[in-house]
Amino acid sequence: METAPQTSITASEKSLIPKIWACQHLAKYNVVTFGAGVIGGLTAKYILESKRAKFNLVGVYDIDPAKVGKDLGEVIGLDHSVGVTVSNKLDKVLTSKVDIAIHTTSSYLSAAIPQIESIVKSRVDVISSCEELSYPYVVNTKSANRLDRLAKKKGVTVLGTGINPGFLMDTLPIVLTAPCKEVKKITVTRKMNAATRRVPFQKKIGVGMTKVEFQKAIDERSISGHVGLKQSIGMIAEAIGWKLDEIKIAQVEPVTAESTIEGGFVQVKPGNVCGTKQTAEGLVGNRPLIQLDFTAAVGVAEEYDMVQIEGLPPVNCKISPCVHGDHGTVAMLTNMIPKVVNSAPGLYTMKDLQVPSAYL
Amino acid sequence: METAPQTSITASEKSLIPKIWACQHLAKYNVVTFGAGVIGGLTAKYILESKRAKFNLVGVYDIDPAKVGKDLGEVIGLDHSVGVTVSNKLDKVLTSKVDIAIHTTSSYLSAAIPQIESIVKSRVDVISSCEELSYPYVVNTKSANRLDRLAKKKGVTVLGTGINPGFLMDTLPIVLTAPCKEVKKITVTRKMNAATRRVPFQKKIGVGMTKVEFQKAIDERSISGHVGLKQSIGMIAEAIGWKLDEIKIAQVEPVTAESTIEGGFVQVKPGNVCGTKQTAEGLVGNRPLIQLDFTAAVGVAEEYDMVQIEGLPPVNCKISPCVHGDHGTVAMLTNMIPKVVNSAPGLYTMKDLQVPSAYL
Repeated sequence: METAPQTSITASEKSLIPKIWACQHLAKYNVVTFGAGVIGGLTAKYILESKRAKFNLVGVYDIDPAKVGKDLGEVIGLDHSVGVTVSNKLDKVLTSKVDIAIHTTSSYLSAAIPQIESIVKSRVDVISSCEELSYPYVVNTKSANRLDRLAKKKGVTVLGTGINPGFLMDTLPIVLTAPCKEVKKITVTRKMNAATRRVPFQKKIGVGMTKVEFQKAIDERSISGHVGLKQSIGMIAEAIGWKLDEIKIAQVEPVTAESTIEGGFVQVKPGNVCGTKQTAEGLVGNRPLIQLDFTAAVGVAEEYDMVQIEGLPPVNCKISPCVHGDHGTVAMLTNMIPKVVNSAPGLYTMKDLQVPSAYL
Repeated sequence: METAPQTSITASEKSLIPKIWACQHLAKYNVVTFGAGVIGGLTAKYILESKRAKFNLVGVYDIDPAKVGKDLGEVIGLDHSVGVTVSNKLDKVLTSKVDIAIHTTSSYLSAAIPQIESIVKSRVDVISSCEELSYPYVVNTKSANRLDRLAKKKGVTVLGTGINPGFLMDTLPIVLTAPCKEVKKITVTRKMNAATRRVPFQKKIGVGMTKVEFQKAIDERSISGHVGLKQSIGMIAEAIGWKLDEIKIAQVEPVTAESTIEGGFVQVKPGNVCGTKQTAEGLVGNRPLIQLDFTAAVGVAEEYDMVQIEGLPPVNCKISPCVHGDHGTVAMLTNMIPKVVNSAPGLYTMKDLQVPSAYL
């Protein structure tokens, strides 16, 4: 019988890893938000309103002159002040009592990483909603590795997460492969009825535009489509041990109305745009092993999240209705706080950390 | 503003935790099975047949005189020998090249723990299918803590897992709470068509018995019902931070045929037993916050696994058909090998470890 090489961790190395997770529910965490935009604002609001007071909001950073110096309650549209003033002085916000910063300013590594590095240098853990950071190795491994080294040096943990990328099209399908002896193909479909979502989100997907206006918006990059499909595919593949030859992201396409659609922020006439559809594939040769399909449009008859695993056993999972994006993102950003605070220093992705869960 | 106490881990403690998970896919693991019964045999067979050879089967332990000294191929009904002889000498089986033992002999802590301790003393990591070990703290915290201390002392990791308990009614609902800001109630339902399962399994749930025969089998404990509901509820509650007052397990009940049912290992006449139904609740006061419902019967029209989370956002997840038990258990026992080998020493449950996934 063939003898395998010994695995790469020894018993003595193992004994260096303390069991620390058990303490996570004892703690109440001091949180700052880096960014007071839509997601930063929703996160701050949730922390302020959180009844069981598992978190304290102890600071908010933003550089927008329209926000700096104002009470956060005013900035996020509450009818009362909350006692936290938006500051553009990072060193004032990141005091020694801060446990974690929730970073919510950009979808792209190029903008996010310098900001996150400035937080890491203050020795504060970071959870970021930056889509490209959810699995940065498909965009810029070099700067991801630099951030990882800095985080290790400073003794802090960094995670990129959110509802998607971060959960629905990566962590969830990864978890659903756990009862599989073999996996041949993974297909993930998200169909969202955008009529139930924020107006800015509806505008971002072109609701009400003509096809010509939509194409112009694509060309001018005012519509960029969902960022994260490439990251989700990369994370799934690494988690289960597939070496892909290529990740192919199709151009974002308009979904057009067959008949008049009401219910969105604007009526959509037949032939006009009611939303977007995007697909992506993880390929070995010409064979797609991972396929993602994301549709967000007003007038979608049934909204759901679906994971189909062709394997032994097959696992076909459907979540109806699809998980609400804004609620889900705020939940992921905050529920991961105890897991991140109690993890080893470094830059991680969702697949690396402890099983995620609500923190009640 | 109120100041929260500092969290219980400091930056210098954090720096002690090495990032080690990244190495998991480099390794090929040397596995022994402790037990050559149904699950041990299926696990050994899977490892032997595993095409990508991610595991080596290097030994099999069993005390059954009908198996000891025979080639495992003969014992598990293959038409060829496999070069591994069943041994009843544990020190011969647990050589220094063994990475992990898959323990599969008992559903109960009282029988399993002394056996697992004997493996731990040989400094070998253990994954056990023992249902009560999946979350031992609802049965015998004292002996679980003793095992934890021994594992830490010997530098090895111990995990109890399987498809259920271990995944469908605990790990999966725990993961599905991750996108929730609030959770009010969790309901998990497993409906299995036993006609597609092993004959011994069908016998274990009373298929074909009269109601009188079924009651007698319950009284004599030849039908014991599914073990694991209490463990699943305990694990969910601890993972998300609920303090339950009580976990209530209802007596296993017969499901009776309304008309003649074919398809099982025996025809079931109207009024006779076609399977079992079990329910369990995790209560705060009189309010069930966690509710589990497990039906296994021939003639079940639709088989599925369902998780319903009443929360913000709500998450309603249905897996159709339900995940196959034997395939799923073997997959969980083997897919967790890299995660367990690369974890800190101690006794863990699924909620404590890295996000589970297939290992391809």
